[in-house]
Amino acid sequence: VNSHIVYEVLDLIGTFVFAISGAVAAKQRNLDLFGVVVMAFVVACGGGIVRDVCIGAVPPAGLSDWRYLVAAMVAALITIVAYPQVKRLRHPVLFFDAIGLGLFAVSGAQKALAYSHNAEVAILLGVATAVGGGTLRDVLLARVPVILQKDIYASAALLGAAIQVACEGLRVSQPWTPWAATLVCVGLRLFSLRFHWHLPTFATRKAEKAGSNR
Amino acid sequence: VNSHIVYEVLDLIGTFVFAISGAVAAKQRNLDLFGVVVMAFVVACGGGIVRDVCIGAVPPAGLSDWRYLVAAMVAALITIVAYPQVKRLRHPVLFFDAIGLGLFAVSGAQKALAYSHNAEVAILLGVATAVGGGTLRDVLLARVPVILQKDIYASAALLGAAIQVACEGLRVSQPWTPWAATLVCVGLRLFSLRFHWHLPTFATRKAEKAGSNR
Amino acid sequence: VNSHIVYEVLDLIGTFVFAISGAVAAKQRNLDLFGVVVMAFVVACGGGIVRDVCIGAVPPAGLSDWRYLVAAMVAALITIVAYPQVKRLRHPVLFFDAIGLGLFAVSGAQKALAYSHNAEVAILLGVATAVGGGTLRDVLLARVPVILQKDIYASAALLGAAIQVACEGLRVSQPWTPWAATLVCVGLRLFSLRFHWHLPTFATRKAEKAGSNR
Repeated sequence: VNSHIVYEVLDLIGTFVFAISGAVAAKQRNLDLFGVVVMAFVVACGGGIVRDVCIGAVPPAGLSDWRYLVAAMVAALITIVAYPQVKRLRHPVLFFDAIGLGLFAVSGAQKALAYSHNAEVAILLGVATAVGGGTLRDVLLARVPVILQKDIYASAALLGAAIQVACEGLRVSQPWTPWAATLVCVGLRLFSLRFHWHLPTFATRKAEKAGSNR
Repeated sequence: VNSHIVYEVLDLIGTFVFAISGAVAAKQRNLDLFGVVVMAFVVACGGGIVRDVCIGAVPPAGLSDWRYLVAAMVAALITIVAYPQVKRLRHPVLFFDAIGLGLFAVSGAQKALAYSHNAEVAILLGVATAVGGGTLRDVLLARVPVILQKDIYASAALLGAAIQVACEGLRVSQPWTPWAATLVCVGLRLFSLRFHWHLPTFATRKAEKAGSNR
Repeated sequence: VNSHIVYEVLDLIGTFVFAISGAVAAKQRNLDLFGVVVMAFVVACGGGIVRDVCIGAVPPAGLSDWRYLVAAMVAALITIVAYPQVKRLRHPVLFFDAIGLGLFAVSGAQKALAYSHNAEVAILLGVATAVGGGTLRDVLLARVPVILQKDIYASAALLGAAIQVACEGLRVSQPWTPWAATLVCVGLRLFSLRFHWHLPTFATRKAEKAGSNR
């Protein structure tokens, strides 16, 4: 019972930070007040709705549980009020997106595992939950989707989801496991942004200008 | 039983007018005959299919009920035949879209309410049904999605869906309630288009050139 | 029992060739190794996941059956290794897409028919399975979606799915029926690409420069 609450907390914090990421992106595009709230909600709940539909958890929690709606709306309103402060961050959209990525990869994988009892479904839907909202945000705002950029993004989500599912599957899960898996994903994502880490592009027979490592 | 028919009628008229909106947009882009029919069907049934998947009503009515397919195809054929007449309207895509918006907001909310018995799900899916088709149309045709423009669009759908769900929830629903809710939404949308009403953008410390009211 | 295996084989070959199509498109855009694998998987399994969600077959086979993941990953790796050879083909993305189109139209229609017992659902979801992956690929990579071009694409999938469903419905299905339906769809698609066949655009009162026939 107690562990159940942990994943809900992860999910609600993830909803909150993804909503900030969506609201900032909408504000940058100068959408109206309602547009900012809609974008915050879509980015925050889009990935989870796709996950819930795929595991048959209908109606999706993002639509039926008022706490998700409230979390997204509070985040949108805070963003609007505190926009001058938020704007001072270097890459506010990507920063909040990175934190949501780790939280959703772990909570999404855990929920899918609880419904499907299938490790592959759990890992894939953990990744989908984590990258779904940001991809929707970028497609709707006609930005280049983060998953298409040569960043460590979906791969960080995959690592976080895989750690969570592996620890559950091997029955070595501890109370701090979900937090550790989240931290690994968020840390990997933020470090890769900070230090311009990339995955190799397998360019054939030509030295690429974008140096890549790991 | 009788009231059930009302919502089916709303839904089928909505399908018809959204299909016209999609077919006109496809015709403007000079798609071939089949492309016009496909676009009409996607715009007309896309929002409803998303709603049905989210409430577990599978297979979605838009796919399993032949009347939706027929309504979309008849609308597409009429559009192709009467295109010179349709073109004379000022904004044919937005005009038919506005009527569909109100019809789908109400019928979509009612169907979601009947399945989920949850007012939040009903209102959110009413909005999703109403704005889903138009958003799909604009994304597929690489137009700027209506929901991103500073128009009263999703907010009009929200009002229509909320009136319908509130009247049902408070058990004050009359036979004319769905029609009134539809009329409020369509009227608000058309007036906002006609008189350039906008929601405030909360521009910080700078007078915006686009004056906004309401 | 035996016929069941046929549709699984069709589905897995379709997954494999669609994955090649997605991987080549991702490689052309110079995505990193992980991006190529993700794109291969999304293109290969996206249409089938939409179909499975619409018929209530959750979790979708593309997520729960490891063979789909393996087929997509093997295709992605082969594409990366053999990219110099693949590149020599005239239109590698469209060529593998055409083969997948026919395979998925037939296997998708058959699976939807088995679940819904509704010919309309089966045909529409056969088409959706066939065109879904390619449309996702083009939207994500910001290419003009194939279904929007004046090509015989969705119409070829419709023909393949309709032949399959008609033969099943009329109980005249033979062991070679699915292969024949696939061949008709793939052949029509490839011939239309080779000889620039188009559907009429119903241009009103003006001779179009793009001559169209059939």
